[in-house]
Amino acid sequence: MAKPFILISNDDGPDARGLHSLIKVAKEFGDIVVVVPEEGQSGKSHSITVKHPLRVREIPRSDDVIFYVVSGTPVDCLKIALDQLLDKKPDMVLSGIIHGSNSAISVMYSGTMGVVLEAGIHRIPAAGFSLLNHTYDADFTLSEDIIRMVVPKIMENSLPEMVVLNVNIPDINPEDFKGIEVCRQTFGVWQGEFEKRQDPSGNPYYWLTGYFENNEDGTPNTDEYVLKRNKVAIVPVKPDLTDFNSLQIMSEWSFND
Amino acid sequence: MAKPFILISNDDGPDARGLHSLIKVAKEFGDIVVVVPEEGQSGKSHSITVKHPLRVREIPRSDDVIFYVVSGTPVDCLKIALDQLLDKKPDMVLSGIIHGSNSAISVMYSGTMGVVLEAGIHRIPAAGFSLLNHTYDADFTLSEDIIRMVVPKIMENSLPEMVVLNVNIPDINPEDFKGIEVCRQTFGVWQGEFEKRQDPSGNPYYWLTGYFENNEDGTPNTDEYVLKRNKVAIVPVKPDLTDFNSLQIMSEWSFND
Repeated sequence: MAKPFILISNDDGPDARGLHSLIKVAKEFGDIVVVVPEEGQSGKSHSITVKHPLRVREIPRSDDVIFYVVSGTPVDCLKIALDQLLDKKPDMVLSGIIHGSNSAISVMYSGTMGVVLEAGIHRIPAAGFSLLNHTYDADFTLSEDIIRMVVPKIMENSLPEMVVLNVNIPDINPEDFKGIEVCRQTFGVWQGEFEKRQDPSGNPYYWLTGYFENNEDGTPNTDEYVLKRNKVAIVPVKPDLTDFNSLQIMSEWSFND
Repeated sequence: MAKPFILISNDDGPDARGLHSLIKVAKEFGDIVVVVPEEGQSGKSHSITVKHPLRVREIPRSDDVIFYVVSGTPVDCLKIALDQLLDKKPDMVLSGIIHGSNSAISVMYSGTMGVVLEAGIHRIPAAGFSLLNHTYDADFTLSEDIIRMVVPKIMENSLPEMVVLNVNIPDINPEDFKGIEVCRQTFGVWQGEFEKRQDPSGNPYYWLTGYFENNEDGTPNTDEYVLKRNKVAIVPVKPDLTDFNSLQIMSEWSFND
């Protein structure tokens, strides 16, 4: 059997240490092509570049990994890889390992998960890996072991069409790890989001900041709850925003009377 | 009873004709504040600006509409409005009217729907309106009537927490209009996405283009199907990507054996 062909992307760009941890582990499972944004693209969600064209550059490597950087968003990376750069469709897309959380409502803002959800749209099995430590020199030892546990499960089992995985890993010592739990996205909202400053001319400008307010604190089987208990949280996600419950409710709104 | 306080945003920027149609109609229902991106922000999805600060500028008006432009994404506009610009939480958020479709999978890439989903995260009733005509001088007559039909229904009825509406309007003469249908997001994928060109130095660059491939053509109660039949398609959407069906399936993956 041919080795699986794995496409790797991220939203932290080519020089993130987490990316190189993911490449190292993914090489144990298949042939690798990397397509990442030239620059860090935090908070880019599912955005695409429509107003200007993209450039692609190949970065030479001393191993057999093929490595491209793209002057766009994470979702651009996957789109241009599938349409222009690759001879065949990847068997799997992996994104990460991100320095920072993509749990709870952050999945909506995440470029890392943008790539993974775009893989879902293209019916490619995919997972995004995020470590709850945003520092440059975060320790990815546990994260690497988690990837070794999750990737074979994706290969062995099949998920419903378009379903992909959001894997968040607590920032703990490997000996404190309490297992993996499949769970749902926690609801919550970012609060106190902007810091107002004045420039030297006295004009205001605003920096995004703030804190996450968990609206479901203490609710079992939500990703935030799971992470706080030293477990890895895996949320199966799908690029479908329809609220099916509301379809029923709204059938009685009688717009057309 | 106080007049409803309505926040209006979009992703086409301050000079889109559809925005001014929406303002005109929304004034019939409440007091209006407009907070839109300084520049058009198509395809920005749920993205936020994290790497540089934002600027806000108020645009003078001859009526009582308060009008701000923000140097960021559509979602930035709503966040900075709630956190910095407004004295009170809006009773409703309306986005649009967009020159172009946000039906089917395009809801994932849409900045217009980014704002609307962000309103959902903040528990504010909201709807995005898109006309299936991307030209500058599109005719918004039917769209204006649709807004007059939909806004009162949102005020009269309550939707489940965080659920907001994606309203797409076919590009037809008002006399051909066949009613409103509440339906789900169509699955599909954009194909043939990039056009490769050469710059004067002979180096390649890539423009995003392509066509939408409907994977569910002919399936009733999907938004693309509804729109093709001269109806307005309303999809109730929620900022929740969890696939609950897969939670069940994955409970048998036994990661921890």
